[in-house]
Amino acid sequence: MKNIEELSVNTIRVLSAEAIQKAKSGHPGLPLGAAPMAYELWTNHMNHNPADPEWANRDRFVLSGGHGSMLLYSLLHLFGYGNLSMEDLKNFRQLGSLTPGHPEYGHTVGIEATTGPLGQGMAMAVGMAMAEAHLAAVFNKDGYDIVDHYTYVLGGDGCMMEGISSEAFSLAGTLGLHKLIVFYDSNNISIEGSTDIAFTEDVTKRFEAFGFQTLEVKDGNNLAEIAAAIEAAKADTTRPTMIKVNTVIGYGCPAKQGKASAHGEPLGEENVAALKEYLEWPCKEAFTVPQEVYDHFNEAARKKAAVEDEWNVLFEKYRKEYPDMAEKWDAYYNGYDLSKLFDSEDYWKKAEKPEATRSTSGSILNEIKQLMPNLIGGSADLAPSNKTNMKDAGDFSKDNYAGTNLHFGVREQAMAAIGNGLALHGGLKAFVATFFVFSDYTKPMARLSALMNLPLTFIFTHDSIGVGEDGPTHEPVEQLAAFRSLPNFCVYRPCDRTETAAAWYRAVTSKDQPTALVLTRQNLSQMQGSSKEALKGGYILEDSKKEVPDAIIIASGSEVELAVNAKAELAKDGVDVRVVSMPSMEAFEEQTAEYKESVLPKACRKRVAVEALSDFGWYRYVGLDGKVVSMTGFGASGPAASLFEKFGFTTENVVATVKSVL
Amino acid sequence: MKNIEELSVNTIRVLSAEAIQKAKSGHPGLPLGAAPMAYELWTNHMNHNPADPEWANRDRFVLSGGHGSMLLYSLLHLFGYGNLSMEDLKNFRQLGSLTPGHPEYGHTVGIEATTGPLGQGMAMAVGMAMAEAHLAAVFNKDGYDIVDHYTYVLGGDGCMMEGISSEAFSLAGTLGLHKLIVFYDSNNISIEGSTDIAFTEDVTKRFEAFGFQTLEVKDGNNLAEIAAAIEAAKADTTRPTMIKVNTVIGYGCPAKQGKASAHGEPLGEENVAALKEYLEWPCKEAFTVPQEVYDHFNEAARKKAAVEDEWNVLFEKYRKEYPDMAEKWDAYYNGYDLSKLFDSEDYWKKAEKPEATRSTSGSILNEIKQLMPNLIGGSADLAPSNKTNMKDAGDFSKDNYAGTNLHFGVREQAMAAIGNGLALHGGLKAFVATFFVFSDYTKPMARLSALMNLPLTFIFTHDSIGVGEDGPTHEPVEQLAAFRSLPNFCVYRPCDRTETAAAWYRAVTSKDQPTALVLTRQNLSQMQGSSKEALKGGYILEDSKKEVPDAIIIASGSEVELAVNAKAELAKDGVDVRVVSMPSMEAFEEQTAEYKESVLPKACRKRVAVEALSDFGWYRYVGLDGKVVSMTGFGASGPAASLFEKFGFTTENVVATVKSVL
Repeated sequence: MKNIEELSVNTIRVLSAEAIQKAKSGHPGLPLGAAPMAYELWTNHMNHNPADPEWANRDRFVLSGGHGSMLLYSLLHLFGYGNLSMEDLKNFRQLGSLTPGHPEYGHTVGIEATTGPLGQGMAMAVGMAMAEAHLAAVFNKDGYDIVDHYTYVLGGDGCMMEGISSEAFSLAGTLGLHKLIVFYDSNNISIEGSTDIAFTEDVTKRFEAFGFQTLEVKDGNNLAEIAAAIEAAKADTTRPTMIKVNTVIGYGCPAKQGKASAHGEPLGEENVAALKEYLEWPCKEAFTVPQEVYDHFNEAARKKAAVEDEWNVLFEKYRKEYPDMAEKWDAYYNGYDLSKLFDSEDYWKKAEKPEATRSTSGSILNEIKQLMPNLIGGSADLAPSNKTNMKDAGDFSKDNYAGTNLHFGVREQAMAAIGNGLALHGGLKAFVATFFVFSDYTKPMARLSALMNLPLTFIFTHDSIGVGEDGPTHEPVEQLAAFRSLPNFCVYRPCDRTETAAAWYRAVTSKDQPTALVLTRQNLSQMQGSSKEALKGGYILEDSKKEVPDAIIIASGSEVELAVNAKAELAKDGVDVRVVSMPSMEAFEEQTAEYKESVLPKACRKRVAVEALSDFGWYRYVGLDGKVVSMTGFGASGPAASLFEKFGFTTENVVATVKSVL
Repeated sequence: MKNIEELSVNTIRVLSAEAIQKAKSGHPGLPLGAAPMAYELWTNHMNHNPADPEWANRDRFVLSGGHGSMLLYSLLHLFGYGNLSMEDLKNFRQLGSLTPGHPEYGHTVGIEATTGPLGQGMAMAVGMAMAEAHLAAVFNKDGYDIVDHYTYVLGGDGCMMEGISSEAFSLAGTLGLHKLIVFYDSNNISIEGSTDIAFTEDVTKRFEAFGFQTLEVKDGNNLAEIAAAIEAAKADTTRPTMIKVNTVIGYGCPAKQGKASAHGEPLGEENVAALKEYLEWPCKEAFTVPQEVYDHFNEAARKKAAVEDEWNVLFEKYRKEYPDMAEKWDAYYNGYDLSKLFDSEDYWKKAEKPEATRSTSGSILNEIKQLMPNLIGGSADLAPSNKTNMKDAGDFSKDNYAGTNLHFGVREQAMAAIGNGLALHGGLKAFVATFFVFSDYTKPMARLSALMNLPLTFIFTHDSIGVGEDGPTHEPVEQLAAFRSLPNFCVYRPCDRTETAAAWYRAVTSKDQPTALVLTRQNLSQMQGSSKEALKGGYILEDSKKEVPDAIIIASGSEVELAVNAKAELAKDGVDVRVVSMPSMEAFEEQTAEYKESVLPKACRKRVAVEALSDFGWYRYVGLDGKVVSMTGFGASGPAASLFEKFGFTTENVVATVKSVL
């Protein structure tokens, strides 16, 4: 006869196996192997309150191996999160259910992060731990550890193989994030077979190299051993901890345990039956949970609710003793209102002289920081070039978690995922930065930012052949198309100070969408016609006198000046052109059909787009009769001016192209 | 008075500093610090022949820290590679010069790989070492070590921070690639300052964890110490070696050495002068090399030519003793001619029943492998899903370098860069594979494949919401746009067996361009109208009876059947539609204007494109008057059929959309 703890662990296993079997799709391997560590952690160590999933000081738990989602859904059901019902478990992986194939943040109550792309959950957890460390440094006072929680993350061999986890954990070690506790579900199995074929490294030693405390649980089914490891992890107050837990993939299923076949497909009816027999499961009926198990989890949930109650009492005392800090807390968590800044004429003023939009961005960033102390971010070792350093904001480091200038090192992937983690944690407004050509490295994480509706800001500088001497490896061509095609993601490529202000306005006021600012290395002239209208994504910068212009030139960023100059040249030949600045296709597409028609009237088919990047995506606006002055290949190494000349970004070529469509 | 070796090392330093100064742009830090190790390696250890840069058995050298390009250009000039002249060095970073900002493969003789995006050179070197190990296993006979060379790679802290290097070196350790020797130029400086701010890990310990032999050179200026380390590295015949060389960034420039400011900007005239004084440089005139230095390098080059001469003699004996092996060698290095296969009707035959294009691809891959033994590749732990396993081809492992099925582990980035390394080495035809949604991780490397004109094949399966239950984290939406916008890259998304055959034809016959095959998870019907014409990228699959069709439906992959069904439905209402299958926009754009007009006549503006992905890029073919049936957001978790229904990929919706444009 199993005791209540074994029975509870097996409940997670059986529910997971049954739901996956019913869906005829899913990954039983992880839930069966990792059920004990998850049970022990959630029940006896983690501070969380199913009745208040948003509690600011809850411990965070990220399942980096998102394919094991049934592990989470089983726990959420048993703890009563969002009343995730047995019916929901029966609808696992069905359209519209609360139990999709991989955990989705914002979709199912209690899910802290969307996971699935292996390794990203690991890096997001590092971001959450950084957020905790920073907020604790900002808000805690003697006797008031208002911010004091752990971040737990669980992943397997796949998460450990992905480079992003090395990037993130190397940084976590440097930063001494001791509230970060990593569970390594080590079962020596990968989809193609034993990990021996591709992964024989000493993972524990790698984590020691990163500066982690490393622990090992020899038997992943031994709850006492797991409990001791968690306690030892908490006891280390200078280093993050990695706990290697030796498990058997698909544990409990005689025909499949320890085999690759247990990973990603249902066990099969017979094997589910065999699993129940092996585990001495008491219930005949599928999707049945012994009442004592529900009672056990309810009891645990009650205890946990009490922990939040204590915190609430503490916080009320804090609010009385430190009213301005409490006010600050509210602002951090509800967001700062910058309407004063954005309504001021000064914010939209023109710059006197030519300026690189990266420099303009840097000064606006610092303006915003003055009003938004919870703005935090940095660059992948390119801050001096990205112009992302915030004056007097301090450097975030092991010795100064209060700093808001983050130094990610040359780690674009971890940086972007950490940005997601900072945004997921709450209380902070985050940004990340690198060269635009390296935005490619951040794309898989930016995709999750968009999928999770996180208002993370990406600052991408050196946005074209304007990079110059560094040459094609550093000159973006297709990156803008890549991000413009990403759903729920807004890209701004401003042409001057005013449009850069609009881009930052969009980024800072966004509540549910990531924004990328695509900025120049080289100086740009200030456009007379640029205005706040840039918030609409596309607008008339210089109009033609005719109701239907002879032609329309559409451009973005550094090419807007070319369009304006071409208009002047064409006027000499009696060609009356409209110039449309299009800093953001996404913002433009949000406008009414009437507005779009007013900017780009269907009646005018003679259209030319100018952008020193790929033409991919531009035909939406120039159609079958228009042309695009663009890059057709990669760039080259040379002074920027010589490159614009070589690749045809000259007034002459734009004029000639317009004439060719007339 | 400096001896000839010190003088030679300083020549590399001075030439580098002078060229960067003249260009007013560049990175002096690395060349000044790493000159001694590069000099010692190239002069006294590396087998290479400036007179024959293509020698098959040369040692490979990759400068992963590509920003230090002047280190390479100085060496290539001094060794007389491609007669890289002093004039070329004076034109460093100028448009059209042989000395671009970063080393470019195929542009400058003696450059083994294009580098710049940090870490990728490390992984490409691992690929080269894998190629060497494999070819040695295939071709070497007792007394005939025809393939027997080392692969050296040099990189700094940035390369070590990037996750891709952890991915690649973890695999290198597993595979025991003892001919791989990594130089870690350790100077503790990054762009944002000391590496302490972001990178305090014990790199040596990390490499031990990977299974490397680790060595340290305490004084990076000590040639004897460097020589000893290289010898010790070669002496280990079971493990790859990492040599940590402690250097001073910008060594020799009193005002800047050891500082971040030495990294990425010219030293300044005064500091160049100070450098020369510090190094006791004998030449007043800039860009002047003491004759004895030239003589010294010429002598070294002569000795190295002799090594190739010996090899040539050995190879001629080998050719006599093993004529069929020599013939095989020629085929490996000149490429196999598969025209017999491709000219056969059998190759283009229709499949009898519905089939997933990933499965079709798997069978074609195996057909090709029969005729192309030097085909090598694998998946990032998804071979069973990607259908990339080659029967009876053996698994490449430490114990069997003769195998051609590669197991990359869950390491998409390293996989793609290793694919580049395999292609760069010569003698092999390589492919890599993963889920299409994870193609995002391979994009930065695919970009280098395209930039280097490497005919690497990317197999991307699970290409849409057809993925089904795994949900949005696993359902590509924007990836196709990302790769279509990449210059010199060809994407094929076939609709059935015949088009999959065309895609493989394109991939296998490509000499200078990477190709991606984008394939379905789910079964697809075989299209009656599909044909070899698919090689043209876009063609008429089912025509209308009218010269100018009432409308044109353009589709790719799994949506072609929808287009065909819609045509049948519309016919009932007297609407006579043409169906165009567009498996490859890139191949279509290569066709003549006449051909393109014949497929998509300007006279017909009523066009609808159907693709279960982002509409981004499709307006090029449907124009301002057409519409696109596409994904506007991310997918969802559920059975594939329910998703196609939910997101409007139904005959009804396509019919309705066509009617809406009539």
